Amino acid sequence: MMQLIVGVDVGGTNVVVGTVTEDGSALYGLQKQRTRVEDGPDAVVQQIATLVERSLEATGAALERDDLDVVGVGIGSPGPLDTKRGVVLITPNLGWRDFPLRDRVSEAVELPATLDNDANCAIFGEWWRGAARGANTVVGLTVGTGIGGGVILNGRIFHGASDIAGEVGHMSIDSTGRRCKCGNYGCLEAYASGTAIADRAIEGIGAGEGTSLPDRVNGDLSAITAQVVYDAAHDGDEYALEVIKDTAHFLGAGVANLINIFNPEIVVICGGVTAAGERLFAPLRKEVALRAFQPAVEVCRIVPGELPGTAGVHGAVAAFKVQTWGEA
Amino acid sequence: MMQLIVGVDVGGTNVVVGTVTEDGSALYGLQKQRTRVEDGPDAVVQQIATLVERSLEATGAALERDDLDVVGVGIGSPGPLDTKRGVVLITPNLGWRDFPLRDRVSEAVELPATLDNDANCAIFGEWWRGAARGANTVVGLTVGTGIGGGVILNGRIFHGASDIAGEVGHMSIDSTGRRCKCGNYGCLEAYASGTAIADRAIEGIGAGEGTSLPDRVNGDLSAITAQVVYDAAHDGDEYALEVIKDTAHFLGAGVANLINIFNPEIVVICGGVTAAGERLFAPLRKEVALRAFQPAVEVCRIVPGELPGTAGVHGAVAAFKVQTWGEA
Repeated sequence: MMQLIVGVDVGGTNVVVGTVTEDGSALYGLQKQRTRVEDGPDAVVQQIATLVERSLEATGAALERDDLDVVGVGIGSPGPLDTKRGVVLITPNLGWRDFPLRDRVSEAVELPATLDNDANCAIFGEWWRGAARGANTVVGLTVGTGIGGGVILNGRIFHGASDIAGEVGHMSIDSTGRRCKCGNYGCLEAYASGTAIADRAIEGIGAGEGTSLPDRVNGDLSAITAQVVYDAAHDGDEYALEVIKDTAHFLGAGVANLINIFNPEIVVICGGVTAAGERLFAPLRKEVALRAFQPAVEVCRIVPGELPGTAGVHGAVAAFKVQTWGEA
Repeated sequence: MMQLIVGVDVGGTNVVVGTVTEDGSALYGLQKQRTRVEDGPDAVVQQIATLVERSLEATGAALERDDLDVVGVGIGSPGPLDTKRGVVLITPNLGWRDFPLRDRVSEAVELPATLDNDANCAIFGEWWRGAARGANTVVGLTVGTGIGGGVILNGRIFHGASDIAGEVGHMSIDSTGRRCKCGNYGCLEAYASGTAIADRAIEGIGAGEGTSLPDRVNGDLSAITAQVVYDAAHDGDEYALEVIKDTAHFLGAGVANLINIFNPEIVVICGGVTAAGERLFAPLRKEVALRAFQPAVEVCRIVPGELPGTAGVHGAVAAFKVQTWGEA
């Protein structure tokens, strides 16, 4: 019987849990539930424990056995974290401070647990089992509500001196630009996150742009999300296509910076924004080629993630392996 | 007798050569000469060979012996390079293309040689024997005519996939800003290099700023260099101080990005700009603290290099050690 590790991806919106074979070849019992943020951290620990239990039950059913060899639980959580102590230091989205998430989950599920940054885990998952398999120098962005990211060097998450490394969404691409909620000005996140895409789309409509977007939300502009923009672009809405092209421009500036700094083999982009598909990736690659050093552009692929919805779970499992056994 | 390694720092302006003990504890026979760019690469190879010879002679004289144990020559050169093959691929400043600098120098001096990027070498030198000693995660900038840089992780220059990594001067901090000579827009180099500092200072004078700068160059504004600006600031010229404060703002945006991305223990800033001293570093640290993630700022020192004029030579020697013996 192959050893199993449970991956837990704790987000401000959802908790996602899955049971993964030790070699990453299969994921069983995927669970997804809205995070019970409003009930506080103890309730979320309880929620995680319940989802782990359900995932293992489903795994047992799928494998037709009840003697599963479960080694532990890898957790990915928003940070900043102290990964060594397994503590969530602060999470604006969850409202936690100095919360020992790792040990609390470990006690609740009676299994060893590890903790790592959620965006780092998503990119690590893509390195382990997704789009960045086999690459030694990987830079990744998770473009959803916000923009997170991660850097994978020689099969390890690059943590930096205090577990903050990889905050590529808070790279300023316009030093006198929009104030970001992190306190900096002109962060990539302030222009190219899902939230920013929706905001920019709404701003343009206010200025009188002709587009199908208002009709798609029955006139309630506040209901426009990035996904609504992608859908409209898919149906040929010129304005929505323009919003996506602008997104490619902003993302392109950020990705070009990362290519000049890291000279990676691959830049993998995960999260909701990949729904825009080649409408985003084609102009993005073009923008990067205009901006970054040619010998660095030539060796770098820019691709969407291959594990939508489960990259974080896969990566939390891979991070468990590294923390427990030294390699994924 | 301690083994000796000769370090060669080839720049668009000067060639600097020094002979360093294997443990980096002493540097002998420092030579500096204007690079014979106009005479082509063969002439520069000959020039390097002559300077290596002179450096070794001076070293022999200093040590009062003629049986020196010279192991080899480490070369730092502008790139992009292919460090494995020892080839300079392109250098805008020197005008070389696909030039096998390493082997040509090796033949001329009849010693083994290695090649690495000049800015990477400067930061590696600061890690080996300067301001960044003992740090595992180091980001450095060399702010001179242009802005180069390097990333040192666990005692190694981080090269990336094709030797381009560390081009932090070509991080765009204003994606719709000034066109940089690299082709990108709004690069840090376009705002905070020595050239850009002088340009900004001259632009302000044109706009009628009151300052001692014109008198310092006998009215010939084109003779204003960054050094003239630092001198004026040192003497209390308010306008020159303002130019340096603006430089701190731009550099601060770039350094904050690097801190969010790498979470380093130290950011070391080398090159002519360090002549501005605390007038630059104090507002720079303040700007970074306003912009970057607090838990990353807290663990990071931002300091001037400690090896002005010889960081590149020291680093070329350390890079020789890594390429030859696996560690510095």
